[in-house]
Amino acid sequence: MALVVQKYGGSSVADAESIKRVAKRIAAAKRAGDDVVVVVSAMGDTTDDLLDLAKQVSPLPPQREMDILLTAGERISMSLLAMAINNLGVRAKSFTGQQAGVITDAVHGKARIVDVVPTRVRETVEKGQVAIVAGFQGVTESTNDVTTLGRGGSDTTAVALAAGLGADVCEIYTDVDGVFTADPRIVSTARKLDRVSYDEMLELAASGAKVLMLRCVEYGRRYSVPIHVRSSFTNHTGTLVTNEKNEDSDVEQPIIAGVAHDRSEAKITVVGVPDVPGKAARIFQVVGDAGVNIDMIVQNVSVAATGLTDISFTLPALDGTAALTALTERQPDIGFHSLQFDDSIGKLSLVGAGMKSHPGVSAKLFAALADAGINIEMISTSEIRLSVVTRADDLDDAVRAVHTAFELDAEQDEAVVYGGTGR
Amino acid sequence: MALVVQKYGGSSVADAESIKRVAKRIAAAKRAGDDVVVVVSAMGDTTDDLLDLAKQVSPLPPQREMDILLTAGERISMSLLAMAINNLGVRAKSFTGQQAGVITDAVHGKARIVDVVPTRVRETVEKGQVAIVAGFQGVTESTNDVTTLGRGGSDTTAVALAAGLGADVCEIYTDVDGVFTADPRIVSTARKLDRVSYDEMLELAASGAKVLMLRCVEYGRRYSVPIHVRSSFTNHTGTLVTNEKNEDSDVEQPIIAGVAHDRSEAKITVVGVPDVPGKAARIFQVVGDAGVNIDMIVQNVSVAATGLTDISFTLPALDGTAALTALTERQPDIGFHSLQFDDSIGKLSLVGAGMKSHPGVSAKLFAALADAGINIEMISTSEIRLSVVTRADDLDDAVRAVHTAFELDAEQDEAVVYGGTGR
Repeated sequence: MALVVQKYGGSSVADAESIKRVAKRIAAAKRAGDDVVVVVSAMGDTTDDLLDLAKQVSPLPPQREMDILLTAGERISMSLLAMAINNLGVRAKSFTGQQAGVITDAVHGKARIVDVVPTRVRETVEKGQVAIVAGFQGVTESTNDVTTLGRGGSDTTAVALAAGLGADVCEIYTDVDGVFTADPRIVSTARKLDRVSYDEMLELAASGAKVLMLRCVEYGRRYSVPIHVRSSFTNHTGTLVTNEKNEDSDVEQPIIAGVAHDRSEAKITVVGVPDVPGKAARIFQVVGDAGVNIDMIVQNVSVAATGLTDISFTLPALDGTAALTALTERQPDIGFHSLQFDDSIGKLSLVGAGMKSHPGVSAKLFAALADAGINIEMISTSEIRLSVVTRADDLDDAVRAVHTAFELDAEQDEAVVYGGTGR
Repeated sequence: MALVVQKYGGSSVADAESIKRVAKRIAAAKRAGDDVVVVVSAMGDTTDDLLDLAKQVSPLPPQREMDILLTAGERISMSLLAMAINNLGVRAKSFTGQQAGVITDAVHGKARIVDVVPTRVRETVEKGQVAIVAGFQGVTESTNDVTTLGRGGSDTTAVALAAGLGADVCEIYTDVDGVFTADPRIVSTARKLDRVSYDEMLELAASGAKVLMLRCVEYGRRYSVPIHVRSSFTNHTGTLVTNEKNEDSDVEQPIIAGVAHDRSEAKITVVGVPDVPGKAARIFQVVGDAGVNIDMIVQNVSVAATGLTDISFTLPALDGTAALTALTERQPDIGFHSLQFDDSIGKLSLVGAGMKSHPGVSAKLFAALADAGINIEMISTSEIRLSVVTRADDLDDAVRAVHTAFELDAEQDEAVVYGGTGR
């Protein structure tokens, strides 16, 4: 008998019929002998509807009130799910973040979990009942105020709760079959990974793979919670995110786990920067002070005659205006000529724990892209990741070429089941 | 500077526009110098929508989960209202029943308030901010479970909170201008009452007047909270429900406060009951054990030759089946001939604290009804109320005749403003 935490996203509980279907799955797991704790998101469009209402009454609502408003969504889905499970003859009780002991800091809108004290959840499980917990929400310890965890928060609730309960596994139910070697919408021969390490999953998530949010994987790694990403629409085994070292991994680690891509970044080029020490640092300090995270950086070779150089960096495209504004304000101080903004870029990332012991990876990647006639604009690397920036229009071709070059393509007879967009 | 608790019902916050209108009213009260605490119900149709969802997932949902579901409604309206007020430059914070310290017993679906510990509400007011509190909901002290107070619960929240805070007045905003001498939909000359005593209001509410729920008035009387019933659509002064004894009530109490009517009752006649001691008690015990509240009772004069009598009583029409079933089951034991069920009755009640010192009231009532050609089927009285049962078809005529006979009709030039149905 295992203790399983199951998490269902908004698309899995979009309407009454979906809720009843999920209830059947939960009741089946319970009847099969497992102890089950469920974390649930708000129903399909609820959050958008509530955001729309807020916009109608106030252009800039206080984030504290926004959190109270949005957490109504999980309150609705969790109580309906508990009703549906009870209706199948399995006892179930729902709990808000506060009742489940999900303690957070006081940063409304993107609070971080600081502790999980799931006393009532544990009592419920010990009575042989199913505990349903509202995802995405918590409560501040000092003021008893309601908080939300921000994007992907329900996944984090699930993994944190699994850690707090010492659960055997945290199952993240979604509308795809698991983690793939590439996005199957781009690469039709993409394969589902049976297993991926926390480190690889972190790099994949940070590089644009949307199936799991970064924070949830970080939490899983810190507390060694096995995360099973699987579809709520099938019974297929999904992808297990876990420590790479375990008994049955005697087989050699494959070099590459997968190819991620990201279209959400843009590139800013600062043209004509005096090539003297400290100028680059000054630029990135100005951008950082504007609250913008920089990803990749390239400094061109200085033109000796002028003593000037160009510095390019990538950042989330949505932060473009903030960065450009901040830099323009400091132009006299930094002393550059002009700024260029380019949001037609794409980023491809090759991720694999085996990469660190295989020096030929980058050469193979560059050759594959060259053979496909794709130009590389920027490069960055980590121990287990290699990222390149291309034209946005070339990105799909680049992903396919690299996927094939690293022999990630599925055999003809391997069935690839893919349920929809990753959320 | 006064401390005012304002309560707004679902029709006053039905959509974003209504919420903004209510926010303006609250901000104006705050700017005028009052300390303001607001109790709010769920937006218009929210509760019905949630009930509908529940019905789709389970025919008989656990009441605990139902309470969690329904309380999402006030969470939405209260946070939106707080946002709208903040948007007008007045600081406002919203609080759930739990956060506002509304402690109830554990009877889910119709919990009773056992204590109000409004620490955070008081702190908010002391900071010069508006506190918005979710109506209709509370929390159990022992288990921290969410409860709802049942029908009219938000009014009760408001009065209980006003009592707990020692507020100067509890304003109940609704879609009518106040308490009237009769339902203006029936009596076009009905007058708004400027003032009515708790006792009179209790009798009016118990006799079918829907403007305030019984429990809220009971709470107000117990803690001497002045209740001001007024329209959220106008700035007219409404009706003050208060203790009859106060400084400016030297003027003689009018004999009659108003005429209430009720179409929701039915009459059961138990035919051919042996006229021996204990039989009537046995009948009412059987009905009471079925969970049915009896209102009026008439026992006919026994026919000497047969030793049999008929006993009639009124009850809520919705409880008719339960009462008839219970009585039929015990027919051999009680020994009556047959049962008659009549749901075409109407009840008229004349309410007035001055009644007790005016012996001519009943004679005047009977004369008015006789003059109008209306037959009286049953009569019951309390210290300050006189109720009669008529045919349902005669009820409107009866109300008008009595209203006129007791000189309650408004003068020609008195404007009667009536906004809609009482909720």
